[in-house]
Amino acid sequence: MDFKTIANEYKTPLYVYDLDHMTKQYEKLKEAFRGRKSIMAYAVKSNSNLSVVKHFADLGSGADCVSIGEVRRALAAGVAPYKVLFSGVGKNDDEIREAIESDILYINVESEAELGRVELIAKELGKVSRISVRVNPNIDPKTHPYISTGLHDNKFGVEIDVAKRMYIKAKNSEFLDPVGIHFHIGSQLTDLKPIYEASEIVADMVRSLHAIDIELKFFDIGGGLGIQYDDESTIEPYDYAQAILGTLKGLDITVICEPGRFLTGNAGYFLTKVLYEKQNGEKRFVVVDGAMNDLARPSLYNAYHRIEAITDNDGEVSKADVVGPVCESSDFFAKDCELPMLEHNDLLVVHSAGAYGFGMGSNYNTRNRSAEVAVKGGEVRLIRKRETYEDLIALEKDLLG
Amino acid sequence: MDFKTIANEYKTPLYVYDLDHMTKQYEKLKEAFRGRKSIMAYAVKSNSNLSVVKHFADLGSGADCVSIGEVRRALAAGVAPYKVLFSGVGKNDDEIREAIESDILYINVESEAELGRVELIAKELGKVSRISVRVNPNIDPKTHPYISTGLHDNKFGVEIDVAKRMYIKAKNSEFLDPVGIHFHIGSQLTDLKPIYEASEIVADMVRSLHAIDIELKFFDIGGGLGIQYDDESTIEPYDYAQAILGTLKGLDITVICEPGRFLTGNAGYFLTKVLYEKQNGEKRFVVVDGAMNDLARPSLYNAYHRIEAITDNDGEVSKADVVGPVCESSDFFAKDCELPMLEHNDLLVVHSAGAYGFGMGSNYNTRNRSAEVAVKGGEVRLIRKRETYEDLIALEKDLLG
Ligand SMILES: Cc1ncc(COP(=O)(O)O)c(C=O)c1O
Ligand SMILES: Cc1ncc(COP(=O)(O)O)c(C=O)c1O
Repeated sequence: MDFKTIANEYKTPLYVYDLDHMTKQYEKLKEAFRGRKSIMAYAVKSNSNLSVVKHFADLGSGADCVSIGEVRRALAAGVAPYKVLFSGVGKNDDEIREAIESDILYINVESEAELGRVELIAKELGKVSRISVRVNPNIDPKTHPYISTGLHDNKFGVEIDVAKRMYIKAKNSEFLDPVGIHFHIGSQLTDLKPIYEASEIVADMVRSLHAIDIELKFFDIGGGLGIQYDDESTIEPYDYAQAILGTLKGLDITVICEPGRFLTGNAGYFLTKVLYEKQNGEKRFVVVDGAMNDLARPSLYNAYHRIEAITDNDGEVSKADVVGPVCESSDFFAKDCELPMLEHNDLLVVHSAGAYGFGMGSNYNTRNRSAEVAVKGGEVRLIRKRETYEDLIALEKDLLG
Repeated sequence: MDFKTIANEYKTPLYVYDLDHMTKQYEKLKEAFRGRKSIMAYAVKSNSNLSVVKHFADLGSGADCVSIGEVRRALAAGVAPYKVLFSGVGKNDDEIREAIESDILYINVESEAELGRVELIAKELGKVSRISVRVNPNIDPKTHPYISTGLHDNKFGVEIDVAKRMYIKAKNSEFLDPVGIHFHIGSQLTDLKPIYEASEIVADMVRSLHAIDIELKFFDIGGGLGIQYDDESTIEPYDYAQAILGTLKGLDITVICEPGRFLTGNAGYFLTKVLYEKQNGEKRFVVVDGAMNDLARPSLYNAYHRIEAITDNDGEVSKADVVGPVCESSDFFAKDCELPMLEHNDLLVVHSAGAYGFGMGSNYNTRNRSAEVAVKGGEVRLIRKRETYEDLIALEKDLLG
């Protein structure tokens, strides 16, 4: 990828996505589940740019959405409604209403109270709402606590007994149709065992529901497949699929998978230019034009991103912190990163920035969010314009009394 | 404040600002520095809504800005250019150019390399750029590491010797005019001693510059005054001013103060409605319609915000986590908060949300940012419209190939 040319044309800070890499990842995962009916439902939250979602839609992907905004994005990008899921612990009434009216595949319900609201709203609309229940299998996924979601002490899903009660309620309701079951124990998973264990628990639940005449059609295994940021060993899609399928013996059920990071993470690059080198005491800093408002993962999770310098200086490297202009000490991209001496306007490529990158961006410090470009078959295309100051104040300026 | 009526009229999630409280805080601080020439330069980053900035401008405030976007906001809101400062570790060439052309009070320079760029650009423009240097006094402010900025191992400012070199360079340049000196050791400071120590170091520096014929006009003490989120003991403005003024004996210099949080923090409230109560194992969750994309401080800093429930239920309280709909375990407003049982649509008021609240907001999970309203003399006024889905996709939709 010719980052230098792209950066010169589209300016920095900039997100660049390699759509061909996304295709490759998608095919790999889809292929692993061959021999079973399966739907890959791309987790829109990981990278919600309309053109990215459309790219997956064109590959036949469904969409896992966590807000009505994401549902609209999926539909606008051409995802078939019968492959759209609506998940999330907190849906408001308007969202539930619109989801039912959009006739998506199902609403993933995360509490008894929510099931009550969905029923109420379906009734108001005179419709039947297809639902699935997110089960919390109480399994420790061994990942960062912020992205661990499968233990009882977090907010996601419901316990097995509660789920059972909910299925019975749904089965007995005129306005609810229980069609699926869902679990997702965390993100950036690199250990197969907890996934297997969770899948076994949930598959057993499917069998016990079957015994009481509740026949589910969809077994939704969530997302969570880890990727290599540094030197992690990751799970092979084939092994992943085999582990899941191993728990489904004897069940005639469609597998739904909600991959996000696996599809987009390593397909994305964040480009930023060097403003200054600076030395404070013993410490070397490389100050760049991108910041935590563009890519929040380092400050939010202390996440590691590999950084590559594109420079004519090929002298000795030394350790430096790569930091942005935002007025917070947490505004950094890397700590103690080995880099050659850099010049004003040298380019840094922050790797693995395709998932949970742009989408977590803010306008903190009145910084415009960066543009996004997509590369496919060697062609580069703008897929989101750079924000301007005018965009930032658009909703305020007429109200300045 | 009648939060219920406001929430019903403007919907939730919603930010509400008490402008009268801001006035009170402003007057208190300004008054503390009476007897000295002083400029209060409101730190726009803490709450950058145009109407908030205008409120301070109307009180006579200047503005401390950390991006050219913030400079534009300040000027658009009516802050006098000669009271506008432009700070920040990473300014790009366009920003420097526009700052010089806007004839603001000064550019706060944070590295030797940056001083070089400012000189170069001033020369190109055929102008003289007024500058100040941010000195890093290497003092531990004893606050959260993410908002601590006064130690050498962080990116802010320059060491004393480097600063001296920079002043001499500026003095000898046709295109630079060194007028100020600046320090800021951290935010949410509750201990006066480190501020006093830093101020002494910097005042000594002013004296030693004076001895070599560099006469500074502005002594910029930064922001950082802490507020009460919970039961912190805070610094009295009077004591603060006395400590600073004590270090300035014999110096004829204008004090500049850059308060942010002190002015806006406790003037702001974040209103959010209850969607569901839910119990996972032993744990009680209150799921609300606001989320970390609206108010990031709890997930980013594990910050405490007091939460008040407005409900008809006045029964027993029990501990609950207050969480939002975003698909991250870090999406919470409070942990183990004592609350009565709550109903769908009950209102929660998150206190102390006026500083570093809305401004750090994002569209993560394709969630629209909330509206903002201001209350002044009992009158409620919308100061920023709620975002819509159309706003979110505006820069993408025409590029959907
Ligand atoms: C329910 C659900 N599905 C899918 C995903 C996507 O996860 P990942 O990007 O790790 O594949 C998430 C992420 O948080 C999630 O919460
Ligand atoms: C240089 C500078 N001045 C002023 C402020 C405002 O700080 P506070 O809101 O704590 O008053 C900050 C905050 O980070 C800052 O970095």
